[in-house]
Amino acid sequence: MATATSSTALNGHSKLDRSNLIPFSSRLKEGRALAQDVWSIYNAANLPADCINLGQGYMNFPPPQWVKDAAEEALASTIANHYSHPKGRIRLREAIRNFYSPSFNRTLDVESEIIVTSGANEGQYSVFAAFLEAGDEVIMFEPFFDQYLPSVTFNGGKPVYVPLHPVTDGSDPRSNNWKIDFDELRRAITPKAKMIIVNTPHNPVGKVFTRDELEKIAALAEEFNLLVMADEVYDCLVFDDKEHVRIATLPGMWDRTVTVLSAGKAFAATGWRVGWLIAPESIIKPTLAACTRIVFCTNSPLQEAAAAGLEQATERGFFKQQLKEYQDRRDVLLDAFTNLGLKYSHPEGSYFVLVDISKVDIPDDFPFPESVQGRGRDFKACWFIAMELGVSSIPVSEFYCQEHCSIGESFARFAFCKDIDTLRHASERLQGLSKYIK
Amino acid sequence: MATATSSTALNGHSKLDRSNLIPFSSRLKEGRALAQDVWSIYNAANLPADCINLGQGYMNFPPPQWVKDAAEEALASTIANHYSHPKGRIRLREAIRNFYSPSFNRTLDVESEIIVTSGANEGQYSVFAAFLEAGDEVIMFEPFFDQYLPSVTFNGGKPVYVPLHPVTDGSDPRSNNWKIDFDELRRAITPKAKMIIVNTPHNPVGKVFTRDELEKIAALAEEFNLLVMADEVYDCLVFDDKEHVRIATLPGMWDRTVTVLSAGKAFAATGWRVGWLIAPESIIKPTLAACTRIVFCTNSPLQEAAAAGLEQATERGFFKQQLKEYQDRRDVLLDAFTNLGLKYSHPEGSYFVLVDISKVDIPDDFPFPESVQGRGRDFKACWFIAMELGVSSIPVSEFYCQEHCSIGESFARFAFCKDIDTLRHASERLQGLSKYIK
Ligand SMILES: Cc1ncc(COP(=O)(O)O)c(C=O)c1O
Ligand SMILES: Cc1ncc(COP(=O)(O)O)c(C=O)c1O
Repeated sequence: MATATSSTALNGHSKLDRSNLIPFSSRLKEGRALAQDVWSIYNAANLPADCINLGQGYMNFPPPQWVKDAAEEALASTIANHYSHPKGRIRLREAIRNFYSPSFNRTLDVESEIIVTSGANEGQYSVFAAFLEAGDEVIMFEPFFDQYLPSVTFNGGKPVYVPLHPVTDGSDPRSNNWKIDFDELRRAITPKAKMIIVNTPHNPVGKVFTRDELEKIAALAEEFNLLVMADEVYDCLVFDDKEHVRIATLPGMWDRTVTVLSAGKAFAATGWRVGWLIAPESIIKPTLAACTRIVFCTNSPLQEAAAAGLEQATERGFFKQQLKEYQDRRDVLLDAFTNLGLKYSHPEGSYFVLVDISKVDIPDDFPFPESVQGRGRDFKACWFIAMELGVSSIPVSEFYCQEHCSIGESFARFAFCKDIDTLRHASERLQGLSKYIK
Repeated sequence: MATATSSTALNGHSKLDRSNLIPFSSRLKEGRALAQDVWSIYNAANLPADCINLGQGYMNFPPPQWVKDAAEEALASTIANHYSHPKGRIRLREAIRNFYSPSFNRTLDVESEIIVTSGANEGQYSVFAAFLEAGDEVIMFEPFFDQYLPSVTFNGGKPVYVPLHPVTDGSDPRSNNWKIDFDELRRAITPKAKMIIVNTPHNPVGKVFTRDELEKIAALAEEFNLLVMADEVYDCLVFDDKEHVRIATLPGMWDRTVTVLSAGKAFAATGWRVGWLIAPESIIKPTLAACTRIVFCTNSPLQEAAAAGLEQATERGFFKQQLKEYQDRRDVLLDAFTNLGLKYSHPEGSYFVLVDISKVDIPDDFPFPESVQGRGRDFKACWFIAMELGVSSIPVSEFYCQEHCSIGESFARFAFCKDIDTLRHASERLQGLSKYIK
């Protein structure tokens, strides 16, 4: 080892050599951990200055004032500026118990069945850290929230991909529908399978899994003894009175399910990094051990704010009102695509819509940057739409493994977590696409 | 696998069996990850209601108002309530560059040499995740900040312990001093050694490593190609004009050193979970890849507040004033031990003092709880002092590996990050120890 350093000094290329002095972990070689991700390609900095950002999934409006008021109260105290218990602040855990117990059909225990995490993201990472053994397989449906893949591989796990299949009936532009092939799912479950991730409402598809689908997944989870990660961060965004079923509430499933939730999505506060996990003690205990090491605890003032949010939401009719607003936002955006005659999957939940961009005729001579060359057709379509029309979106093949990415290539993801004027403005701009539609 | 579930149903012990349905990862079997830790034993809930908490290292005073004002401004905006760039908010990265560049003798690059983390803790975890390969050894000096151990083992690393040796000259009650045995350190470095952690100012010893010590460590790091984690979270708490040397500034060391810092310690805001890492691009890049997966980004409003803190600290003379206050706090507490004739290591930095409790005569018939039975003598002493006198502290053997824990058994750690009245009150109470001193 000493030689590496001395040879550096000797050959004089100290700058070059020293940059690789300490090799990084092999866990970064998998799961696209060091690859240029889609977020940096379609970053505002690379796009026209006035481009409307429907690419990234955060709001252009603030959290409710009454929730922010609670953050200010917390800041004004002493104790809510200091470390919280790693499980989370008791006020927030009690608010979680009171708010969620009915929908879980049980009285949640604040000491053993709830932990607060630094966003849903860190909660999920902690579950992977707590449960994955090297080589353990984690089944995820494609397209998947892109963080799953590296979060699994970082913890020694192996992702196993099962695509949702878009079912199109041809004529109706709203007829995309995404289905699980249950035989394919069963075939994907090997003896190394340890976990399955079920994201409902689904990012980016907007699908809300039906009771029937969840029952079939549950049966397989029981048969193969799988831990189920129910990513329900969009649970307060289920439209048109569609039923949102928590897989944790299906018979026998509580014991093997961890449900992932996020204050960021619930209260338009993605930058607060507060989320929570609900699960039986057998899952919470190891996850808490991981979480305690990873972050020790989550920031205190914004936990207090999230607590106030859950405490007052029902009385204020907040989630009802918010849902209505999102539904209006969705409809403005969907109308734009209907007018263009483009197909899309009608979102039943979440704040994303997948638009079928196969019919968009991308000019061959359009100047594409290197980062987009050699990627799927969707990468080009998103780039073209952003540069030509000033509306950014995200190519969906990014949310697939290499092998299945052609399914994603037909779609762009547009986010409608933006105020209605922005969405109206974007919709107007998008009408300019009509002359490029075959 | 299916059998486990069916047998559960068959034998009827569904409750018991189901609690171990999904085995947790073997990484939780190492590094005390599931053990009852010292923090829960000496938790306020287990101690007398009016016990003065000098156990845990957080303040009983709030962050400065002008720093909190910036948090409120951020909350009032839209953008600072939403996701930050995983590298951290640009305002904070610029404030870090401006504040720290002089003490690193270089102009730090905001894009490649700084990342904001969710507390120093998560920053350290991310470095371990980014660099450790299974079996890689990480050298840490004992006593060590207790999070190091499980954070290393969670990422497949193996801790290697090198004790600091307390040197006592007998007569002077202030004469404890802690030294590295450099031969012992060299012998501890095997071909599997990958990293060394250097915590200065040191928790719990209060030691500020000398330039000479750091140069010797640096020479070994170069010789054996080690990554150096310089945990300098207490860098703004160095007393009596003692020199604080950043190991990253020693010749040749920038390239292999990551310096860990914390807004929690700098601005009395341990619950904000904002920290930062400063290192060359070769270290920041893999660490950012890890950090992005683990937490995605750190909470936005409190990053803005930390930025304001660094922007205005110098002009306001904040760190000077804060240092003076801590020095007064320290002196109040030290006087209490001097009066009792107890030896302690005079803290040169940080907000902890190690008190030699060998001379405290613990009554044999004192009722100790099970959690303290069978642990070191320091566990009993801390319990006794808390129950009998109403001042809590932390036993120091917890910060040692099994093999070396007898060194720690002579000491209790008292924190002086409490307002001066609380410390005066604690000091009065502690005088009651005199009748138990041999
Ligand atoms: C499906 C899904 N899960 C988890 C997350 C992470 O949520 P948080 O911001 O609370 O970390 C997101 C965020 O976009 C998401 O879309
Ligand atoms: C030596 C040391 N390093 C790191 C930390 C963690 O700091 P933070 O609260 O910013 O995560 C602490 C906190 O006590 C500490 O004492």
